[in-house]
Amino acid sequence: MGNATRWVTLTTDFGLQDHFVAAMKGVMLSINPSLAFVDISHLVPRHDILSGAFTLSQAYSYFPLGTIHLAVVDPGVGTARKPLVVSAGGQFFVAPDNGLLTYVFNREDGFEAFEVTADHYYHQPISTTFHGRDVFAPIAAWISRDVPLRQFGPELMQPQRLKVPMVTRVRDALVQGAVLAIDAFGNVITNLANEEVPLYSRAGAGPCKLMAGKREITSFRRTFSEGAPGEVFVVPGSSGYLEIVMRNQSAAAELQISPGAPVGIILG
Amino acid sequence: MGNATRWVTLTTDFGLQDHFVAAMKGVMLSINPSLAFVDISHLVPRHDILSGAFTLSQAYSYFPLGTIHLAVVDPGVGTARKPLVVSAGGQFFVAPDNGLLTYVFNREDGFEAFEVTADHYYHQPISTTFHGRDVFAPIAAWISRDVPLRQFGPELMQPQRLKVPMVTRVRDALVQGAVLAIDAFGNVITNLANEEVPLYSRAGAGPCKLMAGKREITSFRRTFSEGAPGEVFVVPGSSGYLEIVMRNQSAAAELQISPGAPVGIILG
Amino acid sequence: MGNATRWVTLTTDFGLQDHFVAAMKGVMLSINPSLAFVDISHLVPRHDILSGAFTLSQAYSYFPLGTIHLAVVDPGVGTARKPLVVSAGGQFFVAPDNGLLTYVFNREDGFEAFEVTADHYYHQPISTTFHGRDVFAPIAAWISRDVPLRQFGPELMQPQRLKVPMVTRVRDALVQGAVLAIDAFGNVITNLANEEVPLYSRAGAGPCKLMAGKREITSFRRTFSEGAPGEVFVVPGSSGYLEIVMRNQSAAAELQISPGAPVGIILG
Repeated sequence: MGNATRWVTLTTDFGLQDHFVAAMKGVMLSINPSLAFVDISHLVPRHDILSGAFTLSQAYSYFPLGTIHLAVVDPGVGTARKPLVVSAGGQFFVAPDNGLLTYVFNREDGFEAFEVTADHYYHQPISTTFHGRDVFAPIAAWISRDVPLRQFGPELMQPQRLKVPMVTRVRDALVQGAVLAIDAFGNVITNLANEEVPLYSRAGAGPCKLMAGKREITSFRRTFSEGAPGEVFVVPGSSGYLEIVMRNQSAAAELQISPGAPVGIILG
Repeated sequence: MGNATRWVTLTTDFGLQDHFVAAMKGVMLSINPSLAFVDISHLVPRHDILSGAFTLSQAYSYFPLGTIHLAVVDPGVGTARKPLVVSAGGQFFVAPDNGLLTYVFNREDGFEAFEVTADHYYHQPISTTFHGRDVFAPIAAWISRDVPLRQFGPELMQPQRLKVPMVTRVRDALVQGAVLAIDAFGNVITNLANEEVPLYSRAGAGPCKLMAGKREITSFRRTFSEGAPGEVFVVPGSSGYLEIVMRNQSAAAELQISPGAPVGIILG
Repeated sequence: MGNATRWVTLTTDFGLQDHFVAAMKGVMLSINPSLAFVDISHLVPRHDILSGAFTLSQAYSYFPLGTIHLAVVDPGVGTARKPLVVSAGGQFFVAPDNGLLTYVFNREDGFEAFEVTADHYYHQPISTTFHGRDVFAPIAAWISRDVPLRQFGPELMQPQRLKVPMVTRVRDALVQGAVLAIDAFGNVITNLANEEVPLYSRAGAGPCKLMAGKREITSFRRTFSEGAPGEVFVVPGSSGYLEIVMRNQSAAAELQISPGAPVGIILG
């Protein structure tokens, strides 16, 4: 191709039934018809910023340099919360300044964030309830046309971050963490690194149990297919974090556990 | 790029589980591999032509000139209802002649519509139950290859239009309208222009109430976040029409209201 | 365009809520940014290989030569089941060797299949639970960059095939088959060719009944709109097979019938 296609990903809570996502894409194509789109998810639970932040965090780093990630989970639409443009890790991000980029900021040192104030880039008239179409989509498209981020507005040194669950090594044999997310299959994604379990680390096997939702889990498997029917077990998750799972069943439902709930590993 | 990408949007009631939409895209790509697609929605309620018409009407105008909008909500598939190709507002539309383009015709003066009779453009063999794949998709792809619309068949002067709810100014202080649509969040989209509410017009604030489903609504907000939990309130909708909404709850369920139901504004 | 866009289709059971599909697309774009994607379905019932095989079989042949079909319904992820690359009918297929390509093998004589052993093509590190991202997606992208299939590993003469229901002509007037699939509307897709019904064959009308789920169906229609409300009837399906349907209702629910159930046609 003469010019490389510019890729834009979309992460929203707008759902798949209505016209919202398509209107955003139409606005972007009217500014740059050479764009191409990947939908990360439009089924982020409505107004759940942390869930949207997690979904984006699990996908963005696999995309090529220069990709523009547009994320809109925006319960404060129409209020004074700022629109953000961010450069991080060789990619671009467009989102409301409400914590949706928390994981990006936590992971990408040397990110640069700018508050968008140059409203001549917006789609007019600007509605008060759909900034995805009128504010964020046009900004993403203008980034794809190589408008430097500084032209959108002043640098923002402290963009919003949500508190994310931390991992604590309480003592050598006890690591405490929390549930990060539940996926659509009910798999429970923790914030504990796969390597915390001896079986999954280079050190090899060793006794260990995982505490979650009043349960002691002692089954550690490498694959889903090794689990027995009805068994709650742990696998090394594809995001690098331990997951509590069941075969063809929701471990989250079985354990009655939600994001933020504590989990812990006891060794030896 | 050498040749500009031609964009095709799709609006159907085919759902997302089966192969239907992909088969349509495959047929199009076999005719023109330089196409690119945007899905407007495939979750139009099955056979609900007016709902599909509304969804398309809320998205198409944001796309660039030359975009081809393929819409298939087609309860009469296989019967004598005609396939249509339409040029309107610098864009193209392909759909059954059953009212699916009602809002396009109502909005775009000077549209031109043609009945497709040149069946050598179809995908053979033509099934009786899937004209999306065998009739409409290939026509859309041939339009993208610059076949003039007249070559598909004779001009149609009076394509089908569905009756859409009208707005009546009963007297200076009373405007009557109706519910146009309910979105996936249960927001109630009326056909009353945002400007009917003094607060949202340039004239500024003034007393006003909105009547809907046996309820008098007197809360007028500019954004979702201003609403109190459990409150039914009105916002100026992003499509230019007043919306009755609740925060994180379905206003349609709360009011037990459906498309077509009357709404009214009383001023003063 | 300078280089033709290479199209990749995706068929998975990963759902639409999580980041899984987007991570696969990101991995592919990082290898070849000129790709374009069509989603066939991500709502294959989880771990239902035969259902995924059917969905793929109904879509792939409509795509242009050279299309790469990536299919991941993979309950054995992380075990010894092999990753496959296949050339068939001028197209390419990437999938686990678990029967997901059964219909492709049954239909495309002269296919060539190779087991992927050249793990330097994989995305590192390779998780044990998400080979869609780490194994299958990168292979698809490398095929798009014209890596010859033989470079991925040794030829596999007997890739896995699932048993699919056969049609038996029990006697001249009795043909026995089975239910192949149920679509999202509850339409029951059989494996009996449309031509088995005299009305739909060139021979013209003639008495006939279809037996399914304890029911004798004697209504044969050409289109959905000819059916009466509440009526169970047969239409010539768009895939070439007879379908048992109802208007705006699930025939599968009405007949309490599932894939694999026997159906039969009695003539005369």
